[in-house]
Amino acid sequence: MPCIKKTIYTLYVTSTHEKFVGVLSLRELFSAPEEATIEEVMHTDLVSVNVQEDQEQAAQKFKKYDFIALPVVDTKDRLVGIITVDDIIDVIELETTEDFQRMAAVGSSEESYMDASIFSLVKNRIGWLLILMVSATFTGGIIGRFEHTLQSIAALNMFIPMLMDTGGNAGNQSSTLITRGLATGDIHTGDFLKVLFKGFSISIIAGIILSIVSFIKLMTIEKVGFMIAMIVSLTLIFTVMMAKLVGGMLPIIAQKMKMDPAVMSGPLITTVVDALSLFIYFTIANALLGL
Amino acid sequence: MPCIKKTIYTLYVTSTHEKFVGVLSLRELFSAPEEATIEEVMHTDLVSVNVQEDQEQAAQKFKKYDFIALPVVDTKDRLVGIITVDDIIDVIELETTEDFQRMAAVGSSEESYMDASIFSLVKNRIGWLLILMVSATFTGGIIGRFEHTLQSIAALNMFIPMLMDTGGNAGNQSSTLITRGLATGDIHTGDFLKVLFKGFSISIIAGIILSIVSFIKLMTIEKVGFMIAMIVSLTLIFTVMMAKLVGGMLPIIAQKMKMDPAVMSGPLITTVVDALSLFIYFTIANALLGL
Repeated sequence: MPCIKKTIYTLYVTSTHEKFVGVLSLRELFSAPEEATIEEVMHTDLVSVNVQEDQEQAAQKFKKYDFIALPVVDTKDRLVGIITVDDIIDVIELETTEDFQRMAAVGSSEESYMDASIFSLVKNRIGWLLILMVSATFTGGIIGRFEHTLQSIAALNMFIPMLMDTGGNAGNQSSTLITRGLATGDIHTGDFLKVLFKGFSISIIAGIILSIVSFIKLMTIEKVGFMIAMIVSLTLIFTVMMAKLVGGMLPIIAQKMKMDPAVMSGPLITTVVDALSLFIYFTIANALLGL
Repeated sequence: MPCIKKTIYTLYVTSTHEKFVGVLSLRELFSAPEEATIEEVMHTDLVSVNVQEDQEQAAQKFKKYDFIALPVVDTKDRLVGIITVDDIIDVIELETTEDFQRMAAVGSSEESYMDASIFSLVKNRIGWLLILMVSATFTGGIIGRFEHTLQSIAALNMFIPMLMDTGGNAGNQSSTLITRGLATGDIHTGDFLKVLFKGFSISIIAGIILSIVSFIKLMTIEKVGFMIAMIVSLTLIFTVMMAKLVGGMLPIIAQKMKMDPAVMSGPLITTVVDALSLFIYFTIANALLGL
């Protein structure tokens, strides 16, 4: 059926100066009185995309209006082309794949995984891995700085992975969902305060639940001392709060600064959150242990 | 233009038993000879979706054929409806959001972030956070098991966050891209061996590069001993190899087992990779230090 798929039965009406002035369907044309002019039967509430617009904006219009085709006009409102919705599906897929790539800290590429050479796949991955490896050194530096705390209670060591992971996961949840919300138009940068408030409330409740479960587990199953259980559980509350705030706010701030919010999510947030988690951990430990 | 958007100018032809037998466009109908029957002018190479099919499969057909509408048939090939491409855009968006949610280890929800109550947002997040928190305890257990190694060289402690993060990032890159490839149809489960080979090659090259950079950095900037630099750099190669294999394979295995590959990516892989990274680290340390 190759002839069918691209046939659009919508007529776009232009003025004598090629300006886009109206639209009507073939059905309306056929059912109009014989003596009517096009001007009389056409609709003038027009939706179009401009040649200068980003393809992502065009995709947003398709989603909003549920059209099958949209006329394209130049800066002087002259009709210069048409976009159909099947082209837009490809645009949406591509933009989404780009978001996934950014979130996974991979250089963006339109090559398919199966077609790309091993060299170009390495090239897209190694940059971020190097940057993140070097920045994780700071996290290690925090452990180095608090070496004396770890030496006084070696058991504190065992909870480092759990605290880092939980912080990373909590931050990742927020950053991914906020980034996705910004991409689908569900969340706007103007919602900053509302998102801040929601994120803050969620983080307090989630932090307290995790903290209580952890405290019970530490006292009953792992049977660590009361002081260690207190340090770990208190750290959990503050870590989850910090992680959810960092994860929720950075994508919105990125969007406000006209950067792609997806760059802010995933690995970058994990690195920031990891360092802050350990800092919170050792600060609480030092305070409670009086070091 | 509300009347235009949903008007499809494709005629679906049915037999006397309501069986879907042909298709033709309004344009073809008008340009056909007057005495021709519908049977003579219609096309019979048909594409349709079955009522039983998953909406994701319908979306795949739209992407493949670039159609604006597809007829829906029941199990007896009777024409029962029509899907238009603008409905499919919503399906694609929803499925993608679901993938993002799974990757972020958030319970899936069709509620928008802005509309959802704080209680339901906490509910969608807390389950995975608890599961992952408890499983990260195993990672901590590995540190506990190798306490004697850490006590003989306390400096090893400082590289734990960097190794865990780099492993997690490398695994995350692979799992996210493979999961996305499976979702867009770029990668199929039948490509298992090819993906395994590619992943393996990428991981060796990336591992060696990271390892060399890390070794130079450790010897020149951080000025640690040769032995520690060796332990950390060797661990990096094996960690990146392991992470990329785990990250690349688990989503494909999930898909083969008819599970959603997105569940396998992100936090779950990070947890597995973290534990394995530390195990590799301490095993290499013990071997090189002769402990």
